[in-house]
Order: sequence, then structure tokens, then C-alpha cells
Amino acid sequence: MSKPSTKPPSGMRDFLPTEVLRRRHVIELVQRVYEAHGFVPLETPSIENLSTLLGKYGDEGDQLLYRLLHRREALQRPLDRAHAAGRPALEAELADQGLRYDLTVPLARVVAQYGELPRFFKRYQIQPVWRADRPGKGRFREFYQCDVDITGTRSLLADAEVCSAVATVLEQLGFEQFAIRVNHRELLRAVIRAAGIDEALEGTALVAVDKLDKIGEDGVLAELEQRGIASAAGRALLAIIAPTSAGERAGERASDGAQLLATLRAQVDERGQRAVDELQELLSLCAHNPAGQHLEVRPDLARGLGYYTGPIFEITVPDLAGSLGGGGRYDDLVGMFGKKQVPAVGFSLGLERILVVMAEREMFPALSAGPDLMLCWLGVAQPEVVRVATQLRARGLKVEVFPEQAKLGKQLSYADAEGVKAAFAGILGDAELAAGALTVKHLSSGRQQKIPLAELDPARLDALAQDPPTT
Amino acid sequence: MSKPSTKPPSGMRDFLPTEVLRRRHVIELVQRVYEAHGFVPLETPSIENLSTLLGKYGDEGDQLLYRLLHRREALQRPLDRAHAAGRPALEAELADQGLRYDLTVPLARVVAQYGELPRFFKRYQIQPVWRADRPGKGRFREFYQCDVDITGTRSLLADAEVCSAVATVLEQLGFEQFAIRVNHRELLRAVIRAAGIDEALEGTALVAVDKLDKIGEDGVLAELEQRGIASAAGRALLAIIAPTSAGERAGERASDGAQLLATLRAQVDERGQRAVDELQELLSLCAHNPAGQHLEVRPDLARGLGYYTGPIFEITVPDLAGSLGGGGRYDDLVGMFGKKQVPAVGFSLGLERILVVMAEREMFPALSAGPDLMLCWLGVAQPEVVRVATQLRARGLKVEVFPEQAKLGKQLSYADAEGVKAAFAGILGDAELAAGALTVKHLSSGRQQKIPLAELDPARLDALAQDPPTT
Repeated sequence: MSKPSTKPPSGMRDFLPTEVLRRRHVIELVQRVYEAHGFVPLETPSIENLSTLLGKYGDEGDQLLYRLLHRREALQRPLDRAHAAGRPALEAELADQGLRYDLTVPLARVVAQYGELPRFFKRYQIQPVWRADRPGKGRFREFYQCDVDITGTRSLLADAEVCSAVATVLEQLGFEQFAIRVNHRELLRAVIRAAGIDEALEGTALVAVDKLDKIGEDGVLAELEQRGIASAAGRALLAIIAPTSAGERAGERASDGAQLLATLRAQVDERGQRAVDELQELLSLCAHNPAGQHLEVRPDLARGLGYYTGPIFEITVPDLAGSLGGGGRYDDLVGMFGKKQVPAVGFSLGLERILVVMAEREMFPALSAGPDLMLCWLGVAQPEVVRVATQLRARGLKVEVFPEQAKLGKQLSYADAEGVKAAFAGILGDAELAAGALTVKHLSSGRQQKIPLAELDPARLDALAQDPPTT
Repeated sequence: MSKPSTKPPSGMRDFLPTEVLRRRHVIELVQRVYEAHGFVPLETPSIENLSTLLGKYGDEGDQLLYRLLHRREALQRPLDRAHAAGRPALEAELADQGLRYDLTVPLARVVAQYGELPRFFKRYQIQPVWRADRPGKGRFREFYQCDVDITGTRSLLADAEVCSAVATVLEQLGFEQFAIRVNHRELLRAVIRAAGIDEALEGTALVAVDKLDKIGEDGVLAELEQRGIASAAGRALLAIIAPTSAGERAGERASDGAQLLATLRAQVDERGQRAVDELQELLSLCAHNPAGQHLEVRPDLARGLGYYTGPIFEITVPDLAGSLGGGGRYDDLVGMFGKKQVPAVGFSLGLERILVVMAEREMFPALSAGPDLMLCWLGVAQPEVVRVATQLRARGLKVEVFPEQAKLGKQLSYADAEGVKAAFAGILGDAELAAGALTVKHLSSGRQQKIPLAELDPARLDALAQDPPTT
């Protein structure tokens, strides 16, 4: 039998220790900031029923779902049935479960399921999701999302809270220039009505508008026409949502946002004006939290997912196509699962996009995976080696044991090798054993000292790392 | 359209905040102990090629694999092809990827793939795995394993290290009575030869032996006969591996283990004697680490997975059928993927079994998910509420904001409600705003005090929780 490939499948990744540490560094910071905002953790299963997932993400989303093949009789039965009926089996007969596609739909299911949740459920969730998308730079088929959501209230204080949480995360990670683009689904709808576009074409118009950044105004106009929207209406739409060139718009912040909103307000109907009022209120709330100076009103922002109903958000950084995260208000999604309508708003940060940008810009602090001390040994019985390692660990040290008999030089150079990088080597020979001590060598400086075992602890090693040996 | 079920699929679970905290409590402790032993973290993708997974876990394992359905043309092509050939499609045509079944096979793939790993790769990995097994008590279809493995050496120091790591985890979690049962695959083989059983029947004999705990000696004898092993040979086998009744054997510890090993040694051939020597060495090494007092030689321990080659382990606690974890030496698995033979040994703890036992025995410390302070507000503008919350968070407090206008009594009782349980309520009214202060109420004791915003930090709240108010 030929050997299987040892690479992970396309779009999937192995994370070696250094990479795990970077991921963990970001995740722990996100967790800390989300908890500082009063969010509590939730986890949901990787596998959901397809009935939960289908029809929530649009047609494209449905196509990107990973489906789990039925097993044994549950698989054989539909295959045989289709064969007997003289037709190929159908996809829908072969699977009724799939992998989680995002963390928002599972949250909506959970809120509909559990009566014991607080009325205002502020949850965060940091877990992988799966999409069978074409892999690309910063785009994988398994990736982590870091979500914060508040369910149970229509208050814009909730929208301001989720914006504050993600803005604080990015600031604490060291991002300085980032924009939280903001728009409102109802404002978008009103603008489409104001442009004289048939309400039935609203969805298809938004798909075209969403590409403004990529294909420019002429591209959008052409695509709107292809989608059955008269060119006059298309031009009217663009005149409202993209009145200035992209270069000028990029500078918009909360203060200019107020001006822009006033202009929009004059062009839309009453429902659109209510949406403008909400955006104005959101800007005024966020003026007092870390999101404020990053908010940018973008009347052309559309967001792909179908479930948004109110304000929508997207985070961008200079020199990166695509976004670091996005979110919005979705007041109808929980109601698709349960008896009750439960309003909700949330924000999702994409872990891998953040990691890609941080790596490119060298934003990570030094992170070490290696042990504090590699126990090297020479001419002593192995049970003694075990005894000393156990003793050192009980004193709070991370201790690795060189596992085989070898020359001391070989052990020392392994302790300092790439991928191992112990901070110290501890040498245990007959003399040390007799003295109840260890010769401890700081590998990067070469400083070494014989230290009684009973005195070896993290503080003593720190001291040795910093000062020349006294003996 | 009818509403989809809001329950997670069978064998899958939602973890509400309190449960996430318990899981995190255990995982963080495991992580700390594994790192103290010099292990570094690895993560691998949830999805693996089926060619990686198949044939490693035995027939039963292959059947429990979750397979991912091909998508679009990749699915339609084999369905059409089978239809054209006048037969039902085959499972193997419909999927070539599946979900991770354990963490050992992915590790073996990783070791074969990456040349830059240290020669002695000590990795730990804490991730979920998936098995389409029948759900039961403490048995789920998605569950976490906490693995430690050392690759690259045949030294029994490595076996002693993984035993030390898991024993330390259990001790630090608060487990007192647990046994690490130990046996050796080569000793088992030698015993089977000594009993006069054909080597070709070795596998099937082990399956029967593995049930000794469940079905007793008579049951095993009957099953051995069913599996084509003459009753005399079956009796000879049991006489070696189960010479005393189960009750007496349960008391075996390292010291008695030496006696038992000597008895076994006298009954097996040279290869079996080498295995006995290894077990003796392992006992002598572990006598100096936390595993020692828990080791129990069990000549009837078989372990299901096919890939073990040397010492094998299993952890049991009183009054729980099944094990909390297991492991062993697998010197040939990496070689199934790469050009090189790379010896390896590992141990895996099952997170959910540990959690089930800890919950039953009430071994968890008090864990709180709630915020430090719920900001309640009355008659002040919402932007001021945002400003105060932002200020308190910058001072290191976990702050939740009551999101809607409501009477103070309602806000306070929500702050103390089940599932919210803020430690403190902070009341912001006109008077507080004018004074730059907050009226802070310790919800469980009722103590309250007006505290200037600039003095509000975790230390000040601790003080208020402990002492009666001075004003």
C-alpha cells in the first residue's frame, strides 16, 4: 500500500508550537477584553443539524456548508432507494448534519432552546467554523471566529457595547489605524426605494453595491444593469450612497459622519430617517467608548449575510483587502428558531485575518514555548534523574528531561537547539548528586553556577539569567 | 415552513457559561501540568484525509469515522457514474475526508511531515475528536482529549514522563484514588504463545481478554471458544493473566507488581522476558515520580487500538466503569506515514470522563462567570453611562451595562439574578454624576458605599465586600 500524504487537506493547517502560542496570545487577550465588557463564554457543538444551518446564509453560504455523510444503513437505504427508482441519489438524501458555518446561528438556536438564560444574554464565543471556500491568503476552510453578541434588547447601548469590545481588542493588540465602517440595513433599503428600484430587486442590488470597493462605480453600474436595474435608477442609487470618490470617503470619521447622515436624511423616506436617527444615536454613544474614533459612516456598506436588520459593521485596516471582522443587528434570527422574537446584535472578529496582519507587521511580542530547564545527566542512575525532575517541577519549574544516555555536549546543544530552546540546562552528575545540587547553565549568556536543589526555583533562575555568577 | 429543532444533534452538547468555566478550569490545569513537564502545544485540523485515518483504529474505528460528503460536481460525478453503471453509489466514492478520530494519528502524520521538529518532540494537544458512537453516560460523539506524547526515543524515561504528567494532573485536580494499570503488548503476545494459542488468533484472543472486567473468567472462556480457541488453551491463558480473583488483583501496586512480574517472567519465552524487564524498569523509574504509587501491573489489560507495540496504560477510578484515559508505546505508527521509523509513547486523558466524575463528586471549586459590576443607571444620559463603563473597564474591572431604561429595583434584581450574578451593582444617578462617583452595592451582603470613580478598582471592591461600610 502506498503511504498516505502527510500534508493536511487543502485549506486546513497544522499549528506547530510557536504558531499555537501566537494564536493563544491573541485568543487570551480577546477573552480578557470581552470579559471586561461583561460577556460570558458559550460553546456549541461543531456539528449541527442541516435544518438549523440551511437558509440562513444565502445560497452561496448553503453551497459552502460541509455536510456529514450518513453511515451504514442510513446511507445504504437512500442509495438503494434511488437505484431502485432508476435515478442517481440526491445530496439531500445523503446527509442531514453539517459543520458549523458561523457562531451566530448556533447562538440563535441556543437562545431559543434554553429558558434559563439571562434576559440580556451577553455571550462571547471563540471557536472554529468551517466553510468549503476556495482557500486564499488569510482565507482557510477551518478558521476561528471571536464573537460577542447581546440578545434580548433593541437598545443601541448594546450595539455600542459590541463595538466597544472589538475596538478595545484591536487597540490592545497594537492596531492603531483601523476603521469600523457602519451602515444600516433599513437605510440601505430606503436608499434603494429612493433611487426608484423595485423592492423585489433589493437583494440583487445589494450584491452589486457590496462590490463597490472592488470594481468601482462603473463596475457596479454595469452589474446593476445586468441584474435588471435600469441605468437611471442605478446612477440615482450611486449618487446617494457614493456621492464622493472613494479616496475622499476613506477619511470619514464620527464628526464628518454626522454631516453625511444629515445629507442622507434629506434623501430618504420616514423609515429611512428612523434608521438615520439610530446611526446618529450610535455615533453619539460610541463617542464615549474606544470605538468612537474609529467609526466611519459608509452608506455603501452592504454585508453579505441575509439575517441583518439594523446597523451593520465591518472592520478594515489600511493595505488589506477584505475585513478583520463584521457584525450587525439581527432582530429576527432567534425568532426563526423559537416562538419568541428576540432582538440581538453582535460582532465577530476573524482570528486568522488578525494573525496574518500581525505577523506581516511584526506585532507579536516574544513568545517562548521551551522549558525553563533541560535536565542533562551523566553517569547517574535514571531513577535519580526522575527524582530530581519531579522535585524541580514541584518547585514550579517547567522541566524537560533529556531522555537518552548521551555525551554532555550533545545534550547541551540539543537543549539550545531550534524548536527546543530551553532557557537553562541543569547538569546532574555524580558530584552534583552527592552535593544535592545541580550545575545550572544559562544557555544564551553561558553563565553557570552550582545551585542546591532546595534553592532552585523560578526566582533563582531569573537571578542567574541577569547577573554574572558569584562563584 | 416548520421551525427546526433547537436541540443540538444526538451526542453533541451546548456548553452554557457555567459549564464552559468548569471545562476551562480543567483544561488550564492540564495545560499547566503538561508544560511543567516540558511539553509544547500542537494543534491539527479537525478535517483529515480519509487515507490518513483509515486502517489505524481497527474495523470498528473505521466504522465510527465521520465522513464529509463531496460537494457539487465532485458529488454529482460519482452519483451519475454509479447510475450509468446500473448500481448504487459506494460510500468510498462519496467522501475522501473525515473528522479527526483521535490526536495520536494526526501527531504521527505531523512528525512524518515536518523536518524542523525537535528530535525528541514532546508535544501536548488538547482538542476535540469525533466518533459516531452510540451516546451514553460520559460518552459523546464530540469530546475533548488531552494528549501528551514523546516521539523520537525508545527510552523508558519517556514512558515514565508521560505517566508522571497524567498522574500529576489527576492529583492536582483532587483525585486521590486512581490506578494507572500497566501491561505490555509483547508480554501479552508471549503469554498467548505460552498458552499454546496460534499466533494468527492473537488479535481475536485479545478482544475477548479485554472484556475480563465486564464478563468475568467464565465469560471470557466462553468467548475464547467462540473465537476458535480450544478451551484448554483458553484456560491456560487465564491461568497466566488472571491467576487470582479480580478482587485480590485490584490491590496490586508497584511493590506487589514486582512479585507478579517475577511470576510472569517464569512462564514466558525470551521476547516475553524482555517485555517483563521493560515493565520492571518502568516501575523503578516511576517509583520516583507521582505515577509510582498509582501503577498497577495488570497482565489482562489489552487496550483496543491496534497501533500499540510496548507498554500500555489505562487509568481507572473506583466506582466508574471504563477509564479516564489510556495510552502506550507505538513505535511503528509514524513509519506508516513517513520514510523513517520514529518510536513514540503517549498518554491521553479524556476530558469529559474527568468532568463527569468531578461533577458527581463535587470536586469543582466555586467558579464565577458574572461581571464584577453591573452598571445601573437612572435619569442620566446614555452617553454618560458609556463613558463611566469605559472608565471602569480601563481600571481593570469587568463591567456589564444594564442596557435599557428601567426602574432601579428592576435593574438591581436583574444584576443579582441567576445566570447574571454580578458581584456588585454600581448605581449612576444625577447625584453620582455630579460628584464623579458611583454608589456601589455588594449584592450578596447588601453593603453599599459611594465611591469616587477615580478610586474604583478591584482592590477597592474587595475591601467593600469584606468590611462594613464606613459611611
